[in-house]
Amino acid sequence: MAAERMVVVGGDAAGMSAASQARRLRGRDELEIVAFERTRFTSYSACGIPYWIAGDVRERDALVARTPREHAERGIDLRTGTEVVELDVPGQRVLARDLESGEEGWTGYDKLVLATGASPVRPPLPGIDAPNVHGVQTLDDGQALIDTLARTEGRRAVVVGAGYIGVEMAEALLRHGYEVTVVHRGEQPMSTLDPDMGRMVRDAMTGMGITVVDGAAVTGIVTGADGRACAVATDDAEYPADVVVLGIGVRPRTELAEAAGLPRGTSGGLLTDLSMRVRGHEDIWAGGDCVEVLDLVSGRTRHIALGTHANKHGQVIGANVGGGYATFPGVVGTAVSKVCDLEIARTGLREKDAHAVGLRFDTVTIRSTSRAGYFPGAAEMTVKMTAERRTGRLLGVQIVGREGAGKRVDVAAVALTAGMTVEQMTSLDLGYAPPFSPVWDPVLVAARKATAKQRAGG
Amino acid sequence: MAAERMVVVGGDAAGMSAASQARRLRGRDELEIVAFERTRFTSYSACGIPYWIAGDVRERDALVARTPREHAERGIDLRTGTEVVELDVPGQRVLARDLESGEEGWTGYDKLVLATGASPVRPPLPGIDAPNVHGVQTLDDGQALIDTLARTEGRRAVVVGAGYIGVEMAEALLRHGYEVTVVHRGEQPMSTLDPDMGRMVRDAMTGMGITVVDGAAVTGIVTGADGRACAVATDDAEYPADVVVLGIGVRPRTELAEAAGLPRGTSGGLLTDLSMRVRGHEDIWAGGDCVEVLDLVSGRTRHIALGTHANKHGQVIGANVGGGYATFPGVVGTAVSKVCDLEIARTGLREKDAHAVGLRFDTVTIRSTSRAGYFPGAAEMTVKMTAERRTGRLLGVQIVGREGAGKRVDVAAVALTAGMTVEQMTSLDLGYAPPFSPVWDPVLVAARKATAKQRAGG
Repeated sequence: MAAERMVVVGGDAAGMSAASQARRLRGRDELEIVAFERTRFTSYSACGIPYWIAGDVRERDALVARTPREHAERGIDLRTGTEVVELDVPGQRVLARDLESGEEGWTGYDKLVLATGASPVRPPLPGIDAPNVHGVQTLDDGQALIDTLARTEGRRAVVVGAGYIGVEMAEALLRHGYEVTVVHRGEQPMSTLDPDMGRMVRDAMTGMGITVVDGAAVTGIVTGADGRACAVATDDAEYPADVVVLGIGVRPRTELAEAAGLPRGTSGGLLTDLSMRVRGHEDIWAGGDCVEVLDLVSGRTRHIALGTHANKHGQVIGANVGGGYATFPGVVGTAVSKVCDLEIARTGLREKDAHAVGLRFDTVTIRSTSRAGYFPGAAEMTVKMTAERRTGRLLGVQIVGREGAGKRVDVAAVALTAGMTVEQMTSLDLGYAPPFSPVWDPVLVAARKATAKQRAGG
Repeated sequence: MAAERMVVVGGDAAGMSAASQARRLRGRDELEIVAFERTRFTSYSACGIPYWIAGDVRERDALVARTPREHAERGIDLRTGTEVVELDVPGQRVLARDLESGEEGWTGYDKLVLATGASPVRPPLPGIDAPNVHGVQTLDDGQALIDTLARTEGRRAVVVGAGYIGVEMAEALLRHGYEVTVVHRGEQPMSTLDPDMGRMVRDAMTGMGITVVDGAAVTGIVTGADGRACAVATDDAEYPADVVVLGIGVRPRTELAEAAGLPRGTSGGLLTDLSMRVRGHEDIWAGGDCVEVLDLVSGRTRHIALGTHANKHGQVIGANVGGGYATFPGVVGTAVSKVCDLEIARTGLREKDAHAVGLRFDTVTIRSTSRAGYFPGAAEMTVKMTAERRTGRLLGVQIVGREGAGKRVDVAAVALTAGMTVEQMTSLDLGYAPPFSPVWDPVLVAARKATAKQRAGG
């Protein structure tokens, strides 16, 4: 019998990283680890699902970093198909239900990790449960969509939502030969970007043959006599559809924690300290898509569902439960994605974020290339940079371009973390050779222009 | 008649950037600008020459960012084919010689910019002046080599030197169909890397069909009856060659400054302050390949010939001469290159650099991939990270890998500039999506391993 029991609720990135890291630090005789997972899968890359559907990834199993059996072999008592339905904080126990048999039982814990993830937003619209309307949140969702695509005769697809998942799914469906329409509420795709950069994405998507419908509120899914969706209705039109994909976003899945009275932020995500302990609860940790994280630029907490954060949270939790000490200081809001050959990246604050926290700022936008202009494959990119007025502190960078554009955002992410000014950035010693960069890297070109503007008084 | 005269010695990146920036800030009636350049070319990318020879770049003129005529049109009195042969500091004047006519004349200055660049190392070996022995420093050098390649019947090429130029030229010659032998003195190619990483480069080059001869001191070039090189002789062998390329390195071209008594560092490069003023000389600036720069990691000055630095120096000098204020704080020693599809990058200190400045350190080496492991095109890379013992301060990163490896060094370059510890790096919010990165970016994987080692006491 181990001295302590760690209970993990949720078997994807955050939960199983925490379990694995804790196991690395404490052996089976010191720490018993029990993990509950509703589905049949563990430790899979949800971010990879659009690429599996697109055909870049051939096999579902390629997305699974570690199977339930592999976890079990490492001494983790993993119970798949089992959902935790109640959390008793004073009693230090969770009530779990076997989803097949319906049997329930309590399991006590010394250390609890909540890694319940996020739920896709699925508005209660007429027709939304039609069999050819798909989310792409779980591996089962992905398989269902792939099955639908294999069976579907038609050639028209409507994607609802134009965030990361929406644009990635637009590409995936385009590659399956569909006529793709993206319907979304915003004024332009990618609301994580400023409007001017979002418009560049829209224009590029239109150029790829994707129909983008801005400012459209979906009022329902029109179904035929067979019960299948045949169109997406908005407040002023109907868009015929043989398949519908929902990519409206996700929200933290924290009903369990809410019922138990654990502290949550404005998005509903759990609030933790830097060690990923739930605030006010010494023995409860939370990580992954069910928490809010500190935005190091704005100083506010935010909900960001992203596998890379979930993995970091899990490592930190596992280290702390395992008797070490680790922290997750926060994020700067970096994200990168692509639609066909268009790369889209952002970090830091959008203009409206900066307004919201009362900052005065200036922005600049420059165009440059991924390689020296004379080098084959030099691809255009646009870099927008935002800096605080007077101080010149970097607040954010957004990049839209072709190959080689996206990951350049990392330079800005590190500079944001370090609190650099745009002027300090102008002398950054970035890698230069003609196949890799113009002699002034595009990020440096933006920093120079931002510095000039800041020196001129904005 | 302008109020002041700026004289620029050297018309490539540093000199002409300085001239252009000063002109932007001060009009023709305020500042007269005279620039002297020995060759017929200005503002060209010397770094691009190997790619021109390889055939990536079709036209010599593509490497010229701004022609003499374009500079003249912007109000810069540019005198090509004219070499400055003497500097009279007390008299504030330079003596320039027209290389065609031999005529000489003094030109007075109020502000002087020395941007005389670097000279390729060309040891006084027998046969080194044979017509098929080529450097690749200037556009004329490049043209001469291209002409030789077009005329040469043989198929064997020997490259002397295995630094950036050497490996780039090995690729260029391979692509011309040559059997390529690289002969160099070191124990492995790329002495800017640690030996273990250099060996990876050698193994990859060997795999590309390049013969790499380590530890070979060239004793002479063997010439035939026609006076042309036919082999490269080392202390223990002869390597047949139909063409020989020298890529042994460069040294600062500072004879003029030396004769005038200006301060120079151990490499012979001019010493400046952060505004790029030559130390102790209010009205003399220097930049580009003829200066030493401050290494922000070691605290020592170094000579690094690199176009990106030269451009930055020029901007800073131009801003200061133009009446503004700008600084070049220093470098962290970032460099990136490639040989065929192998990308090679480094920043910060090598192990021997860290030893030389008395630092105690630990290193880790990890292997990872450029994209999520399951994503098509995921390419292997090796990342080596060095951190100071006890403090965990990042000291250096080296990367050898395939597509997507090289520019990842930029994250480390920014982290070095900010003085981050490897533990701080583990939580960097870098862009993640399966086509761009594994869920843990390779740089973060290295930082995690380095942190674990540092915490364990090295």
